[in-house]
Order: sequence, then C-alpha cells, then structure tokens
Amino acid sequence: MSKKANITNRKTIQIEWGDCDPAQIVHYPRYLAYFDACTTALFKKAGLSKRQMPNTHQIVGIPLVDLRASFKAPTRFSDTVVVESEITEWRRSSFCVRHRLFNKHVLAVECFEIRVWAVTSEADPDQIESKPVPREVIEMFSAEHNHRPAHQKSRRKKR
Amino acid sequence: MSKKANITNRKTIQIEWGDCDPAQIVHYPRYLAYFDACTTALFKKAGLSKRQMPNTHQIVGIPLVDLRASFKAPTRFSDTVVVESEITEWRRSSFCVRHRLFNKHVLAVECFEIRVWAVTSEADPDQIESKPVPREVIEMFSAEHNHRPAHQKSRRKKR
Amino acid sequence: MSKKANITNRKTIQIEWGDCDPAQIVHYPRYLAYFDACTTALFKKAGLSKRQMPNTHQIVGIPLVDLRASFKAPTRFSDTVVVESEITEWRRSSFCVRHRLFNKHVLAVECFEIRVWAVTSEADPDQIESKPVPREVIEMFSAEHNHRPAHQKSRRKKR
Amino acid sequence: MSKKANITNRKTIQIEWGDCDPAQIVHYPRYLAYFDACTTALFKKAGLSKRQMPNTHQIVGIPLVDLRASFKAPTRFSDTVVVESEITEWRRSSFCVRHRLFNKHVLAVECFEIRVWAVTSEADPDQIESKPVPREVIEMFSAEHNHRPAHQKSRRKKR
Repeated sequence: MSKKANITNRKTIQIEWGDCDPAQIVHYPRYLAYFDACTTALFKKAGLSKRQMPNTHQIVGIPLVDLRASFKAPTRFSDTVVVESEITEWRRSSFCVRHRLFNKHVLAVECFEIRVWAVTSEADPDQIESKPVPREVIEMFSAEHNHRPAHQKSRRKKR
Repeated sequence: MSKKANITNRKTIQIEWGDCDPAQIVHYPRYLAYFDACTTALFKKAGLSKRQMPNTHQIVGIPLVDLRASFKAPTRFSDTVVVESEITEWRRSSFCVRHRLFNKHVLAVECFEIRVWAVTSEADPDQIESKPVPREVIEMFSAEHNHRPAHQKSRRKKR
Repeated sequence: MSKKANITNRKTIQIEWGDCDPAQIVHYPRYLAYFDACTTALFKKAGLSKRQMPNTHQIVGIPLVDLRASFKAPTRFSDTVVVESEITEWRRSSFCVRHRLFNKHVLAVECFEIRVWAVTSEADPDQIESKPVPREVIEMFSAEHNHRPAHQKSRRKKR
Repeated sequence: MSKKANITNRKTIQIEWGDCDPAQIVHYPRYLAYFDACTTALFKKAGLSKRQMPNTHQIVGIPLVDLRASFKAPTRFSDTVVVESEITEWRRSSFCVRHRLFNKHVLAVECFEIRVWAVTSEADPDQIESKPVPREVIEMFSAEHNHRPAHQKSRRKKR
C-alpha cells in the first residue's frame, strides 16, 4: 500500500479567545491539543473509535512517543483554520501522523507525531508495551478501502 | 466545631504567560484550574491524598456540584499570587470550600465550591451518589486536630 | 423588551480526550472555557464581533465579574453536547448570560455569567470601568430585531 | 563560549489532576505549557524578564519556531517532577533550549525548542522578523557570568 492511498481527515477549528496569549496569537501548546483531537478524528474517519478501541482492539491506546512541530505563521483569535491529517508511514509497531494547519490556505503549522500501538505488558500489568499494528487496522486507512459505497461503510461503523 | 477552627491552606502560584489571554490578564477558566489544585492541596494538608482516597476512604472522589466566583481585580503574567483555601461549611453529604486569591495582598478572586462525598451507586455501578461525610474526615480539617505534635501527624500521614 | 424576545445561540461541542480528567469526565474548568467561547458566539450571532468591538464600540471588552455554575450530570470523551446561550437580563452597565449545556437532551451544566460593558478609565488609563450598555447594542439581541429578512441582516453585518 | 558554560534552571512542578487525561497520565500538550514556563524561568534566572524584554531589549518576544519532544515515560497525578532547562546552542538570530523533565530521577520527557529573537518588521509593522541575538544577552547565560559571588548576584536580582 502506497502513502498516496491513505485517507486524509480535514477538521475545521475556530480559534477561540482562550486559546490565545498576550501576544495575541495561539499559545502553541493549544495547537498540540488541536492535533491530538485531529488524530482522534482521523481514526474515527477510518472507522476506529478511540473510546471503543480498548474493547474492539484490546489496546490501551495509541500514545505519542515523539513529536516534531514547525510554526511557520501565527494564527489569531477568530481565525478559522483547517487541519489536514493523515498517516504518512506505518512501521512495525508504530506509525507517523502528519498534521498540517492551514490559515486562509497558508500552511501555518506542521506537526509529525509518532505513536505506538500499545497494550498492557504481560510481564508487568503496570507497564505498557508496543505491539505490531494489525494489518486490518492499516487497511482501514487505505483510501481505496474507504471508497466503498457509503451504505457499506455506514453499516461497518455501526457494528 | 466552629468555622474558625478549620485549617487553611496557602498556595503560592506564579501566573504564567500561557494562563493569560489577549487582554493581558489571566483567562478566567485557568483560575478554576488553580482552585481545583488548591482544594487538592487543602485535603493533602489535612492528611487526605486525593490519589489515595479511593483506597483509604472507598469514595470515587469529591466532585464539584456548584460553583460561584467573583472576579474583583485582574492578575497578569509574572504576578505571584497566594490562594487561601478553607472549608467554610460541612453539610451532611457535601461541603463548601472557599478560595481567596490575593495579588499583592489585594483580594482579586473569591470562589466558593460545593463538593460532595461521592461513592459508586450500589443500585447502578455506572452512577455515583453522595454519602455522609465521615466524622473522622471532618475532624482532620480541625485546626486543633492539626496542632498535634509534628511526629504524630507525620506518622498518621504515612499510614 | 421582555426576556423571551432575546436571541439564543446554539453551539455544538465535541468533547475531546484532552478535556477530560482521570475520572473520565470533563475537567470542569474546560466547561468555563466552552462557555466563554459560547458568549463570543452569541455576540457574533447578534452581529457583534469580539475582535472588532474595541473599534466599533470603543470598549476594551465585556469582562466577567461574577460566575455561577451547577454541574448536574457528567459528560465524557466523545460525547457531543449542545450549549444554548442567551442574555437573560440587561442591567445598567452589566448583563447576565445564561449557558445551558445539554448532553443527549439532558441538562448537564448550567452557568450564569455577569459581564460588564468596560471601557478604559479616563482618570487612570491602566484601569477599566463599566459604562452603560448602549441601547442599540441591547436591541441587537432582540429576537424581533434578528427576525428581519436575511438580506437586511447580512447587510448590517457587513457594515 | 562552550555549551558546558551555560546556566541551567531547575523548576519543580507538581502534576495536577487537571493536567492528566482519562489514561491517568499527563495530557502531553500540558508538558509543552510547562516547558514554555520553564524557558521563561531560565531567562529570568539569567536576569531577563519576559515581561520587561519589550522595553529593555526592544523585541516583541522569543517566539517558538520549531519543537521536538520525546516522551519516554509517563508521569501521573501527584507526581513531583523537575525540569532542567538550558540553552544548548546559540545561532545567529535563534537559539535552542533543551528541557529535560525528570520523574524520580528518571528522564520522562525531553524537549528541544528553537526560538528566535524577534522584532517588529520595519517594512510591515504587522509582521515580525528575526534579528541577531545581542552578544550581551548570550553572555548573561554564561555560567561564568553567573558564577560571580552569590552576594553580588542576589543584589543584582533584587534591584
């Protein structure tokens, strides 16, 4: 499966007063909160509910282990921005999510998250450990997989 | 037990850049986050660890049910403020915590929280219900109780 | 003008993972951040942009001076809630905004904000002081005023 | 001036309930808020007040342009952590700040920030542009500069 085939999620975010700091721009930790929500939305678009994944996929979650972000232009209160999110790489037990935040079509922030497919450690239940991402999960992010007729998708989501 | 006898906790808080909004003042939801931490600190001073209370007192927590706050003067980035917290009233299954935030000895924010002593409902484990606050918990907030010699207090805390 | 005549804004909010705490419910200061954004949205619906009001109405803002909130039911990650906001009372230099947050049609949180119409003090430019709310501002929140044909409203908004 | 010579700031942070998410660990955007405050504290230790720098150094600030962070171990509510911050590299108009967050002496999070020395653009007052970091600013972070006898330093800080 090529990178190109991956689905992309677009999330529209209204910049709120409380997200901005005395310099009149978004306080950058808020961008990371946006992006965390965007990863959740990307998984939801693929049919994977973060809330249900502990039951449906026996994982504790997809914790972040590594983060890179570039802040190219500021965004301000009352701006409406769009974040495009997609998985750019699948590794054995981890994957890379790229978020690009656009303000009036200009790339303002770019972020790369490395997350792991995490389960409770069998050796020590207080620890978590990574596990290979199941093939069927990866396939759910394939754009082709998601181009099936809408009625099939909606049935799948309801299961 | 009179009100006067209750212990008071004083917490010093440094106002951070990220707590302030484009009007150059603390964005008020942050005050509520401060006060939540101040209630935790008040309980800790009384010998009650929020983290341990599910084990030591079989409760799910002390959730907030009612909040009142008055914002009398702004505080700004790099201000150092002091929050004085105390329990002003014990009711049957709930209690009132008062927080007063002082900026250079001027009362800037006053807040009253009503919290309940909450346990898992026996009828429905997905619900919580309030329960009478144990007498020994109330006594732990008595100033007199806390005026015992330090070595006794520290022993109690370690249990 | 009666209370009934006031416009109401409805804002749909997706509860995000990062808004929730270890008790699996929304950490209550986040509700106040939601409500602050809801007041902004209510004013926008009335044709008043928080960003533009310093220019259009020569005020520094509409700061909160008093807050009351009741937390009646918890909301959790992935819940979609609706906040209904309206101005319930106009006083001389202040006004009361009521927010009601509904989770699956159940009232989960109710909040009352008292805000003031604030200008820079002429006596001391470092201070702010309240000023009577202009009649034309109050009229913008009248439902009747907003029931005018859409082309009139959009013209007004663009001015 | 070698890297070794730079001053280090140590900031003790109490992990609060509201900083943690339903997985019972710190929600990672909060770490970035901690680190932003740690950079402010590092500058303050060097004698540079973020609040005063617009006046004392004619800059608009030291905005973040690039961020990298590695999350190696979780931290939880009621943990007390220590963040060690230092400038690891001075470039012409930018510099790198490294933060290392330790939980019980174990490195839990490491973060590298690239920040710029930013002034208002002369060509367009709505834009900011970077400017060479003044030599005297760099020298303020030299450990040697700060190794002057304690009574001198404390006197300087109190002025």
